[in-house]
Amino acid sequence: MKTLWAERFAQRTYGMRRSEVRELLKLAGEPGVISFGGGLPAPELFPTARCEEACIKVLRKRGAEALQYSATEGYRPLRDMIARHTRRYGLHVDGDNIMITSGSQQALDLIGKVFINSGDHILVERPTYLGALQAWSAYQAQYLTVPIDADGAVPADMEAALRAGPKFIYSLPNFQNPTGVTLSLERRRKVVELADHYGVPILEDDPYGQLRYEGDHLPSLVALDAQYRASNGAPYSGNVVYLSTFSKTLAPGFRLGWIVASEEVIERLVQAKQGTDLHTSTFAQHVAYEVARDGFLDEHVRTIRRAYRERRDAMLAAMAEFFPPGVTWTRPLGGLFLWVRLPDTIDAADLLRESLKEKVAFLVGSAFFVDGSGRNTARFNFSNADPERIRTGIRRIGVVLDRMMAPALVR
Amino acid sequence: MKTLWAERFAQRTYGMRRSEVRELLKLAGEPGVISFGGGLPAPELFPTARCEEACIKVLRKRGAEALQYSATEGYRPLRDMIARHTRRYGLHVDGDNIMITSGSQQALDLIGKVFINSGDHILVERPTYLGALQAWSAYQAQYLTVPIDADGAVPADMEAALRAGPKFIYSLPNFQNPTGVTLSLERRRKVVELADHYGVPILEDDPYGQLRYEGDHLPSLVALDAQYRASNGAPYSGNVVYLSTFSKTLAPGFRLGWIVASEEVIERLVQAKQGTDLHTSTFAQHVAYEVARDGFLDEHVRTIRRAYRERRDAMLAAMAEFFPPGVTWTRPLGGLFLWVRLPDTIDAADLLRESLKEKVAFLVGSAFFVDGSGRNTARFNFSNADPERIRTGIRRIGVVLDRMMAPALVR
Repeated sequence: MKTLWAERFAQRTYGMRRSEVRELLKLAGEPGVISFGGGLPAPELFPTARCEEACIKVLRKRGAEALQYSATEGYRPLRDMIARHTRRYGLHVDGDNIMITSGSQQALDLIGKVFINSGDHILVERPTYLGALQAWSAYQAQYLTVPIDADGAVPADMEAALRAGPKFIYSLPNFQNPTGVTLSLERRRKVVELADHYGVPILEDDPYGQLRYEGDHLPSLVALDAQYRASNGAPYSGNVVYLSTFSKTLAPGFRLGWIVASEEVIERLVQAKQGTDLHTSTFAQHVAYEVARDGFLDEHVRTIRRAYRERRDAMLAAMAEFFPPGVTWTRPLGGLFLWVRLPDTIDAADLLRESLKEKVAFLVGSAFFVDGSGRNTARFNFSNADPERIRTGIRRIGVVLDRMMAPALVR
Repeated sequence: MKTLWAERFAQRTYGMRRSEVRELLKLAGEPGVISFGGGLPAPELFPTARCEEACIKVLRKRGAEALQYSATEGYRPLRDMIARHTRRYGLHVDGDNIMITSGSQQALDLIGKVFINSGDHILVERPTYLGALQAWSAYQAQYLTVPIDADGAVPADMEAALRAGPKFIYSLPNFQNPTGVTLSLERRRKVVELADHYGVPILEDDPYGQLRYEGDHLPSLVALDAQYRASNGAPYSGNVVYLSTFSKTLAPGFRLGWIVASEEVIERLVQAKQGTDLHTSTFAQHVAYEVARDGFLDEHVRTIRRAYRERRDAMLAAMAEFFPPGVTWTRPLGGLFLWVRLPDTIDAADLLRESLKEKVAFLVGSAFFVDGSGRNTARFNFSNADPERIRTGIRRIGVVLDRMMAPALVR
């Protein structure tokens, strides 16, 4: 029998997507399963000892403050630390341009709440981050999609989409989720120029920028936009809103992300956040600040980079060894994911079902396409398992693939 | 110059209310100000030593889990603990009926996201909790208001409002924010009957239920609804969704609240929460569980009750001593607030302005009225200052009131 509540769901809930990520996180948790499905950092690298010191220090020295209600914008020393970090990458902002969010996911939700009217079109990459689609479906967004190749979103297609008048451009330039592709420098400049020409603002989502395993750091869209507007120095134009997070560099369990925006936009986001969760955990903010400070986080990121690079290489080597001809994959320069393309005849959902029988999981790619296409694609995470388990898991999937792709000679 | 982003705010942002609470929290933070404005717990009672033990235990024994991504529904042992707590009050639910939220404010936001279509009418008390109005304005809710007297919402007015077909009833039965008024047992039964008769579900918000300083605990609406439907035992009907929080019993800085609902509603709320912040801080949930367990929180709540009762009594005594005739106030049986009514000729905003010159703050009442009325009302918090400071602050406001209310005999 339906309850009175269950008869009354709002219209928008019918557009909400069930998260395949979440379902996979459940499977990933089952004992014995090697999961390439989630976007989980390596838990053995979490700086638990440093966290313990930080908790003790925070509780003894500022316990009354750290356990109390606090400002919606976030903990000021943490905002200032993020501003200093941002300035190192050539963007002249200060703490007033930073708002702390409850993970990057909340930043996506607040952007939706503050900017998206029902029916607005958002320009997104194809495929793009599932969590953004989930967040914005609640605000009844529509999408214009731009295909990506090995250098990221294709400029000619982007220009065509811009002519249709999107509300904003959503871009993940570094080691994109889900494909692992990096937007080239030339294309970054082109995106900034196009956005300026068509008068469309950019939302730059950069959770993985610190996790580059080879090649030089490329300037962010927000820094390039500042350069584009001013040859001397780089004052912040406010036309690019930039998102990042501590989830991949420190730990996801604190749920700490941030938004860089103009003060006018921060003010509106703060109003929205008040009604959404009042503020992000004061305690988590204080502890993260104590952990990160004095250069610890920079040093810790170097450790993560070394480990993840080894894991990426292990996955690439195992795929080369065990995946049959006709299967291709990207070679990411950083981040957590690579992207596998199966022959058109193979449905990734079938491969997943068979792979789970062998106790290996990954994420089907269609979840990342607005239109549910990409049925022969899959996202593989390489950060959460060690090289040995990666090799074992990829070998098992290789066996399944051999079986599925073999011509059916024998009945 | 407006940025491209600032030209593009969504329609709904124009209905968002600036939080007077937030502005006051800023003032409350200034040195030397005695603030009765916020709803802040007494920080000197935070169990910092127990929190330290909990942090150490969590990080050493389950650090990899506590710092990782986790299930949207929340940490299972914490959900089960809350279910046990709920069963003690006569409602037979289990962990599957509980979802952890990032503070009670997020519960209000998620309820809005999952249930409110633009233009839906919500039945609220007059005055009612400001944070609910803030949360739901983002979903473009409209309101039907029911006045409250010393026994809570007036049944005849509620019935009239129910005839207009609201989406749901929003009720704070215990020590209501802002008035401190408690819904009588007779009226609780009446609300449940009326809701059933008109087929309208109830959202029961109970942040303060544990903080009763005198009299017997009254059954919650959710428990009464269960009794009303079944004489043997009290299976959960799902027609009342119940909200509570650890913010007032443990500490607000963890940002931990919860929702009790049917599994069908929990499932939809989980989908909405995925897109909103993915999950609540894993670390905060683990630490709160370790702090609360083995009866610690029950014991701690007894300490808080003793302290807050003393503070309530100090405020009541000081008002009786220092406030001039013509000013009246409620006598709350629990919670954090009492409600002051000034003569019609006095605007609470003027009183606040004058009081701030004397370094005392409170919250003007009009913020809690949907229509901005109640200009001669004010909310006073008594949990955040010790009895001595309460007496000092009320005396100062009494002096200001004497001045404002004195007949202007001398020019």
